[in-house]
Amino acid sequence: MGTYMMFAQRIENLTGSLVREILQVAQNPEIISFAGGLPAPEIMPLPDFSQAPTEIYQYGLSEGEPALRQIIAQQLKGIGLACEPGQVLVTSGSQQGIDLVAKLFVEPGTPVLVEAPTYLAATQVFRLFGAEFIECALDPQGISPEQLEQLIAEKRPAFAYLIPTFQNPTGFCYSEARRRDIAAILDEHGIPLVEDEPYRELNFTDIKHRPIAAQMKQAPWIYLGSFSKTTCPGLRIGYLACSPQLMPYFSRLKQATDLHSNRIAQWWLADFISNGAYLPHLQRLREYYAERCEAMEAALQRYFGTMASWHRPEGGLFFWLRLQQAIDTRMLLPEAIQMKVAFMPGEAFYANPVAKCGAMRLNFSRSTPEEIERGIKILARLVEQASETLAELAD
Amino acid sequence: MGTYMMFAQRIENLTGSLVREILQVAQNPEIISFAGGLPAPEIMPLPDFSQAPTEIYQYGLSEGEPALRQIIAQQLKGIGLACEPGQVLVTSGSQQGIDLVAKLFVEPGTPVLVEAPTYLAATQVFRLFGAEFIECALDPQGISPEQLEQLIAEKRPAFAYLIPTFQNPTGFCYSEARRRDIAAILDEHGIPLVEDEPYRELNFTDIKHRPIAAQMKQAPWIYLGSFSKTTCPGLRIGYLACSPQLMPYFSRLKQATDLHSNRIAQWWLADFISNGAYLPHLQRLREYYAERCEAMEAALQRYFGTMASWHRPEGGLFFWLRLQQAIDTRMLLPEAIQMKVAFMPGEAFYANPVAKCGAMRLNFSRSTPEEIERGIKILARLVEQASETLAELAD
Repeated sequence: MGTYMMFAQRIENLTGSLVREILQVAQNPEIISFAGGLPAPEIMPLPDFSQAPTEIYQYGLSEGEPALRQIIAQQLKGIGLACEPGQVLVTSGSQQGIDLVAKLFVEPGTPVLVEAPTYLAATQVFRLFGAEFIECALDPQGISPEQLEQLIAEKRPAFAYLIPTFQNPTGFCYSEARRRDIAAILDEHGIPLVEDEPYRELNFTDIKHRPIAAQMKQAPWIYLGSFSKTTCPGLRIGYLACSPQLMPYFSRLKQATDLHSNRIAQWWLADFISNGAYLPHLQRLREYYAERCEAMEAALQRYFGTMASWHRPEGGLFFWLRLQQAIDTRMLLPEAIQMKVAFMPGEAFYANPVAKCGAMRLNFSRSTPEEIERGIKILARLVEQASETLAELAD
Repeated sequence: MGTYMMFAQRIENLTGSLVREILQVAQNPEIISFAGGLPAPEIMPLPDFSQAPTEIYQYGLSEGEPALRQIIAQQLKGIGLACEPGQVLVTSGSQQGIDLVAKLFVEPGTPVLVEAPTYLAATQVFRLFGAEFIECALDPQGISPEQLEQLIAEKRPAFAYLIPTFQNPTGFCYSEARRRDIAAILDEHGIPLVEDEPYRELNFTDIKHRPIAAQMKQAPWIYLGSFSKTTCPGLRIGYLACSPQLMPYFSRLKQATDLHSNRIAQWWLADFISNGAYLPHLQRLREYYAERCEAMEAALQRYFGTMASWHRPEGGLFFWLRLQQAIDTRMLLPEAIQMKVAFMPGEAFYANPVAKCGAMRLNFSRSTPEEIERGIKILARLVEQASETLAELAD
């Protein structure tokens, strides 16, 4: 008898990742890559593990190192989220927080409310577990409270997954009013919130907005954070904080998933933050990225003036460029790569398939101001050519 | 409206872990713990990260560091498993390999063939995803090929999960004949094999047995390995190797789960192995654990002579003690802990519930020969008392 393979049904939802393929191409050092969301390597801190205690090499606790959990809880209190160390779980990157959320909530047919557009790798995980997506339109102030309320009434999602601060892919930052209204609606209907904030600390201006979770009084919440964007992604340390009643579930799910996260990286992060080096580093990082954001803003104004619109982000890693013509930007990608520039087509960021959204996500953290100038110029020429071709076809 | 929580159905299968609770108690340094499977900390290598290249702190490849994948493929070839680097995926501990296997194969009702007894934390993950367990009895030579063939005919499992070398919890090592017969049966029926071998390198005598996967010609195979038992578990690095056709699935599942594993730990392991330090370390470790195994054998002979039977392991971390009287050893645990000795009750290791299996798993790697002598003496007294109480009740 031949080979017999009985995969779980979810494997039908295991789609190839466009991002993965683009990122592999974009690793070519000759390419100016606006595609990924990679921190600039030259400004990363250089970890020193030489003072780590030897105990750190033994098995550890599923929830994470007590010192790091305490530091994270303090940080969260500092941004208004009442949170004790016992509500914090250290994860192997914030991607793992998404995997744990999917394990807790998602099975075939589970309705999940997401922004349109939203973080691609989150929808991939939710889809793998069988989620049906309910999309809520996003504008620079956030999702619309009215639409949220209507979608909850109609579809009753298991949870809402939102990225309110310097959203991926748009860079939008939810306004104070929207945060308050969304918290009230989720509370009223008892819908759990999954708030993903890997970019919060990359702010270029003063950001006073508390997390939405901080404004919720009744409904359960899960808050995901990461050290990948502010320190070293190769260490794979993120965290999940949650309402107290959810913690026993996440502890056990974490234990079943990988027992616990790498301890040496946890030790170093706790040391780096508590010895006072983290905040000055963060300040340098903000200035560094603000300069690149500024360079991209200038280049966009120079080359995309009338061809596109965008909202200048106040933090994070991305511009979301909306072209006047709603073309499918995936069509532009092969030629862009031939001309040594990579970007992420907007279509990839919608949980439910869209055609011709006419948008691009442009990362500014990884390229120098000169590369940004050069790359945006090339992209603008490509878009211009595509528009002319379309106009000719329409004639 | 009150709090609304719609968990996935799998959460009903998310049982509390007896092991977890026992291990927490056993962390008390006053307790002689035979409960866990922890390496002895005093013989762990002390990683030196000072020569790590700075690139290692950036995001990396989902499949793992190329240098480490190559080393693992070479090691596997050395034990007879034909395997290219492209068939190796570095995982965040071998526990994550089990999670990825569950994601690929297991949904509610999926039949999974396991040994009875087997590794507790594997059945927990498979159960979480909805597995139904088909148990195959285990003797010191391995599972019975006849029973395997019969169970395949009757129940057609999605895969067989086996731990052929120094099995957890029994310490048994499958014979050459059984390995060959099992490979032939799985091949004939095209049943995928998941072969979990975290203990293979902890051999006290010369072990020439190839993995079962190495003897398979047709059916797909997955081989799980770990560096946690031979180096530092706190680094959380294990691996999965598999038939080439399975690799694209595992790559994507890994990416969705945590993007990739900690790179600094991968770098150090590749360096530690390739600079020639690993093999001498392994030799010291084998001698160290062999001495403790010997001490436990002697103590068992001294104190458990007629009360129990056991099979002296030729490697790994555990003795599997079968009492003459089939009592539920969970009943002994509170008193044992009061007397400052911890062990793992045998009942915990059966995928389907059993009562009164009359067995204990005893770890010998973590305790000194003196502690082993003292702890086994206390356990023997407890078992003796329990037997007397049972005899009185029977009168």
